[in-house]
Amino acid sequence: MTARVLVVDDILANVRLLEAKLSAEYFEVVTAMNGLDALEAIHRTKPDIILLDVMMPGIDGIEVCRRIKANPLTQHIPVVMVTALDQPEDRVRGLEAGADDFLTKPVNDISLFCRIKSLVRLKMLTDELRIRADATDSIGLVSKTSNQTMERPGHVMLVDLRDTSADRIATALSEKHEVHHVNDPSKAAELAAAAAAPFELIIISLEPDRFDGLRLCSQLRSFEATRQTPILILVDPDSQQVLLRALDMGVNDYLMRPVDRQELLARVNTQVRRWRYTEQLRSSVKATIELAITDSLTGLYNRRYLESHLGNLIEHFSNRGKTLSVLAIDVDFFKAINDTHGHDAGDKVLQELAVRIKMHTRSIDLCCRTGGEEFVLVLPSTDLVAASIIAERLRKSIASKSFAVGKTHAVPVTVSIGLACLGDVTDSLDKILKRADEALYAAKREGRNRVARSAA
Amino acid sequence: MTARVLVVDDILANVRLLEAKLSAEYFEVVTAMNGLDALEAIHRTKPDIILLDVMMPGIDGIEVCRRIKANPLTQHIPVVMVTALDQPEDRVRGLEAGADDFLTKPVNDISLFCRIKSLVRLKMLTDELRIRADATDSIGLVSKTSNQTMERPGHVMLVDLRDTSADRIATALSEKHEVHHVNDPSKAAELAAAAAAPFELIIISLEPDRFDGLRLCSQLRSFEATRQTPILILVDPDSQQVLLRALDMGVNDYLMRPVDRQELLARVNTQVRRWRYTEQLRSSVKATIELAITDSLTGLYNRRYLESHLGNLIEHFSNRGKTLSVLAIDVDFFKAINDTHGHDAGDKVLQELAVRIKMHTRSIDLCCRTGGEEFVLVLPSTDLVAASIIAERLRKSIASKSFAVGKTHAVPVTVSIGLACLGDVTDSLDKILKRADEALYAAKREGRNRVARSAA
Repeated sequence: MTARVLVVDDILANVRLLEAKLSAEYFEVVTAMNGLDALEAIHRTKPDIILLDVMMPGIDGIEVCRRIKANPLTQHIPVVMVTALDQPEDRVRGLEAGADDFLTKPVNDISLFCRIKSLVRLKMLTDELRIRADATDSIGLVSKTSNQTMERPGHVMLVDLRDTSADRIATALSEKHEVHHVNDPSKAAELAAAAAAPFELIIISLEPDRFDGLRLCSQLRSFEATRQTPILILVDPDSQQVLLRALDMGVNDYLMRPVDRQELLARVNTQVRRWRYTEQLRSSVKATIELAITDSLTGLYNRRYLESHLGNLIEHFSNRGKTLSVLAIDVDFFKAINDTHGHDAGDKVLQELAVRIKMHTRSIDLCCRTGGEEFVLVLPSTDLVAASIIAERLRKSIASKSFAVGKTHAVPVTVSIGLACLGDVTDSLDKILKRADEALYAAKREGRNRVARSAA
Repeated sequence: MTARVLVVDDILANVRLLEAKLSAEYFEVVTAMNGLDALEAIHRTKPDIILLDVMMPGIDGIEVCRRIKANPLTQHIPVVMVTALDQPEDRVRGLEAGADDFLTKPVNDISLFCRIKSLVRLKMLTDELRIRADATDSIGLVSKTSNQTMERPGHVMLVDLRDTSADRIATALSEKHEVHHVNDPSKAAELAAAAAAPFELIIISLEPDRFDGLRLCSQLRSFEATRQTPILILVDPDSQQVLLRALDMGVNDYLMRPVDRQELLARVNTQVRRWRYTEQLRSSVKATIELAITDSLTGLYNRRYLESHLGNLIEHFSNRGKTLSVLAIDVDFFKAINDTHGHDAGDKVLQELAVRIKMHTRSIDLCCRTGGEEFVLVLPSTDLVAASIIAERLRKSIASKSFAVGKTHAVPVTVSIGLACLGDVTDSLDKILKRADEALYAAKREGRNRVARSAA
């Protein structure tokens, strides 16, 4: 793990000290000696992390942090505030300004490297999610800014053998978070993985003599549901080895006992806020991808997705000597439905049709709306005989029950279906779709509300 | 760094040995004792990495690997083949089957943990990119499978002080890769970052007495262009400390001198193939996002994107007491162009219009095609006076020069433009778009080919 670190401090000796420590550990170091230079250096050098002194003439560290976090181009860069030990209120102000972590002067080496590594590791993951669609800074369809991420209380699990200590911690956090106390570490990982609402932070009060907390961390990291969940550990000052090991395993943050309540709250807030930012990015990318490949009216896949994936499916199945079938489905006299009952009714029909199609297909089948009233289904590992049975069943289920289009209104709907099956190895996406379409036209010609098979 | 590891070996003692070593380092271990059980365990336990013995009765390790890599659901899981020292041909077969790495029995602890950590670290990044749009396993619009990623030769940089050693390495790789030799390590990072075609692998032949190879690794990791580029180092057997440090910094792979040519080629192939798989995922996600937010005809943003981002922009600008302007643009008599010259000509007009709009806007402006012949521009930090000037300039540039729609054909085109500006703090997306539209209708009423401002 290495990274580009921006060190900001107005005292040259402090800058040089941090620069030397970081360089010796093979970090690339950039420096700035006041707030304005720091902001300029950020845009020029794009650091992975910023160590920011609080007390500076001109714009102080708090204000620099606030500006970094207010700018969508820089808000993802972690900021570690460097505060004097006797200025605990600086931490609260730093947190309010959006700082990601705190270090106290004189800076302890373990804290320094561990906190940097943990933040940089997380940034590498979020960088993958901050995908730009083009030369501008568009990141999919992000609709909320991360400032809104602290409105709900955090959903926190606390693993602590001692009820009294757990109570103290829960009380310290109660103003902002909901704490679920688990006093049996052997059950914690399973409970966390099975939780209906995922935990946003897991605090583990380590007691090396009484249970193997590292094993618990490792279990949490190996379950899919909890592998990204932030973990904060509470350790005794003499448990240096355990601490280092935990940080190496990917534990996100730690606090030494006796636990300072202010600092605990600050660190918990930060972990939860950062987690929510990442989850937001993740769901934004996910939602954007969903928009690109689905039809917004019915929720089925769109033509673009059909074309992109049917090609792959054909290659996969024909290489393995397996077959697949394609159904081209078209609503009969759809224009008349629109003209008679209005476009809203037409839309309702299409939505209900999508529901009935889904009811008659398996999860491995690919259901697409490819145009106005046209649908295509792809049924993997299904030959023409089996596909005919499915198509006929689907046709009947549509014709047999009118479609509700309003509270009291229902319209009869029928569909025509054309069937085609994967042929020899030279078969292609275009050819099979064309054969299904030709069969569909035949079904229309022969009187609609029927299934026709491609001759080929 | 921790992970779920599947250990596959038909000899119980081997399974137990690896299980004990991995457990002691807090990896979660799952085991299987034959090929079929292994395939079943993969689907059930979703391991992060698989250690696979080659020699097994029934389906051997090579075949298990082939099946893992042929299945789109499992091909992203790294596979490390465990081979006997005296069976070098197993490595070549393993590679051909798609294995990601090799370990030789008896397994050395450093190799074991370093290779696992390096592969798991990479998997965590690709997992972020393998975003599922819904309950199925759709990963955006991936159009190629990773099997096709080894057709082109790899673009490899080799940093080596010695020309003779560099020649030997280049020769060993020449069959499959293009090797660019750099003999001055101090220039390597800059050269790699500035390369027109990005390098797909950087091989560094470490000589701790003559240059600081770790510094070079750290520089490469700090440049945006090379931070994800795989690095393979060549080290002497007595440089254990340097090796450990390098692996801790995120170097992807290593080889001990004297370099075995077969193994070198195998490891280079694997790094390049894996890199291409990741890049493919990245560009697939990127392309899918682009499809979701852009208009395919003109390449401008679509209405969905406008609505998602204009809301953010309005909030951002009105919170800061700044302004922005919105231009609603509509092509005059567009139906007549379509009717007279055909739809293709209509499409050409819209494309050319997008080009002229782009020419008259800054990179920070948001240009959207919101419907058939309707466009919306958003100009941040621009008041009504400045926006009027820009709108008038744009209108003129369109009216003054006919639009080419074929080799010989050109049609005159004019547009009407409605202008609105951000009002007080209660202003919203809907309101400002509505005002721009009303101004657009006024421009149409007043005779078209003109700019009208919203009264509000």
